[in-house]
Amino acid sequence: MDIISSSQNDKVKYLNKLYRSRNRRKEGVFILEGKRLIEAALAGGADFKQVFLTPAFFKSAENDNLLADLKLKSEFIYLEEQLLKETASTVNPQEILAVVKESVFKGEDFYQQADKILLLDRIQDPGNMGTMIRTAVAAGFDGVIALKGSVDIYNQKVIRATMGGIFSIAVRQKLSQEEFMSEIDSRAADYELLAADIEAEEYHFQHRYQDKLILMIGNEANGIDQKLLAAATSKIKIPLAGEIESLNAAVAASVISFEILSQSLKKDS
Amino acid sequence: MDIISSSQNDKVKYLNKLYRSRNRRKEGVFILEGKRLIEAALAGGADFKQVFLTPAFFKSAENDNLLADLKLKSEFIYLEEQLLKETASTVNPQEILAVVKESVFKGEDFYQQADKILLLDRIQDPGNMGTMIRTAVAAGFDGVIALKGSVDIYNQKVIRATMGGIFSIAVRQKLSQEEFMSEIDSRAADYELLAADIEAEEYHFQHRYQDKLILMIGNEANGIDQKLLAAATSKIKIPLAGEIESLNAAVAASVISFEILSQSLKKDS
Repeated sequence: MDIISSSQNDKVKYLNKLYRSRNRRKEGVFILEGKRLIEAALAGGADFKQVFLTPAFFKSAENDNLLADLKLKSEFIYLEEQLLKETASTVNPQEILAVVKESVFKGEDFYQQADKILLLDRIQDPGNMGTMIRTAVAAGFDGVIALKGSVDIYNQKVIRATMGGIFSIAVRQKLSQEEFMSEIDSRAADYELLAADIEAEEYHFQHRYQDKLILMIGNEANGIDQKLLAAATSKIKIPLAGEIESLNAAVAASVISFEILSQSLKKDS
Repeated sequence: MDIISSSQNDKVKYLNKLYRSRNRRKEGVFILEGKRLIEAALAGGADFKQVFLTPAFFKSAENDNLLADLKLKSEFIYLEEQLLKETASTVNPQEILAVVKESVFKGEDFYQQADKILLLDRIQDPGNMGTMIRTAVAAGFDGVIALKGSVDIYNQKVIRATMGGIFSIAVRQKLSQEEFMSEIDSRAADYELLAADIEAEEYHFQHRYQDKLILMIGNEANGIDQKLLAAATSKIKIPLAGEIESLNAAVAASVISFEILSQSLKKDS
C-alpha cells in the first residue's frame, strides 16, 4: 500500500484542482466527501473515477462491505489522514473522498426516465437547491431540470444538502429556457406543466394532478419567469393564512410535491 | 438635525454593543435592519426603543408614511451613511436600523393567545428556524415555543429569515423541557400534542387535526427528544416514496402545517 503524504503528489494536485468548480466542470466530475454520500452514490449506480482514503479507513472492519463494492468500480488512492483533511472542504470528511462522473441525460433519455419532474428556474442558494432535490426524491419525483442561471447541481453544498438524493433522480441542467420550452412543446400532451401562482384560482389541495407532470419552482426573489408562467397548463396557489407575503421556494415546492404524493396514495388505498 | 459621524459617539457605541448577542439579550432587545422588517415590526405592534437612520432616508418622500408612524413610537438618531453601513451586519441595511424590545410572553398569556403552536426542540440553524417561523405564520399558526438549546429567536439571521413573520406570532423561548411539560400537563385537555414519527401508523394526510394543537419539531440531526415523543398525544408520519431516510426539519414542519391548514379550509368550504 503506497501512502501519499505530500500535497505535491500528482494525484493530490489533480484532486486539489477539482476543488475549483471551473476545473471540475471541465472534467465532468464532482467530489463526494464522507462514507454516507459515497454509499448513496454506490447504491445509485454512480460512475466512480477515484477513491481517496486513509489507511485507517481501509483497515476498519466496519468499512469492509463498502470497500469491497467500491474496489470493483474504482482506483484506490491512499492519503495520510492529515493530507486528506487538508484537501477536503468539509470539516469532517470522515477519511474518504471520491471523484465521480457527472450523470448527464440527453432529452429523450431523460423524459423516458422521468414522470414527475421538478423544474428549477434560476435557483441561487445551494442549500435551498439541495433541500429541494432531497424533498423531491422523498415525494417520489424522478427527474430534476435546472435551467441556466441556477447554481450548479454538482456543487459540493448542493450535493451534501440532497443527503444522497442526487443519486436517485435523473438530472439535467444548463438548459436555456428556450431549449426547455421547445422540448416541452413536443411533449405537451404527456406532461402537465404546473406553476404556483398567487393569482391562481385553485388551491394546491383542490387540484387533481396528472400522473406525469413538471412542477416549476422559480428564483427565490423573483419567482418563476413570466414566459414559463404563461406556458403553464395548470396554476395553483398555496393558501396563506397569516401576515406573510410568500413562502420560501423550497417550502412551496415541499408543500405541493407532498400534496401530489398524498393524492396518489389516497387513490391507491 | 444632529448627524453623527463618529463611531465614538455614545449612542453608536451602545448600538455596537448590542450587536454582541450577550449584551443584546441582557438588555432584552433586538436589532432590525432595513425598511421592510421595520414596517413589519410596526404593523405587528413592536415596541421601538431607537431608530438609527441616514439623513437621506429621512428626506426621501417615499419614506414619509413610515417615518410619521415611527416618530410617534421612537427616538430618531441620525447617522452618516458610511457609519450606519459599517455598524450594520447586513451588506445592504437600506439606511435604517431599529432597536426593538423583545416580546416576552408569560405562560398564561401565551396560551390564551395561541391556538396553533409550533414547538421547536433544540433547532440549531438560524435560517432553518426563521423559515419555520415564516412558514408557521403563513399556515395560520399563532404561537411558537423554542425550548432551551435552540438558537435564539431574536438572532439577526432568524429574524431576517422570518421575513417579518416574527411580528405576527406569539413567542416564548428558553423554556426547559421540564417547564414545558409541566405547563402542558395542566392543558392536556385543550391541546393535541403532535409529533412526526416514522414509526407512526397514520399518515399526516389521514389524521384529523384538532383546532388547538402543538406541533413538535425536533433537532435537525437527532429529531424530537424521546421524552417529548413519549408525551405526544398523536403521532403521524410523512410518506417517503424515494430513497431518502428523512426530510429536512423545516420541510417536515411545512408539509404538516399546510396539511392542517388545508383540512381546515376544506371544512369551511
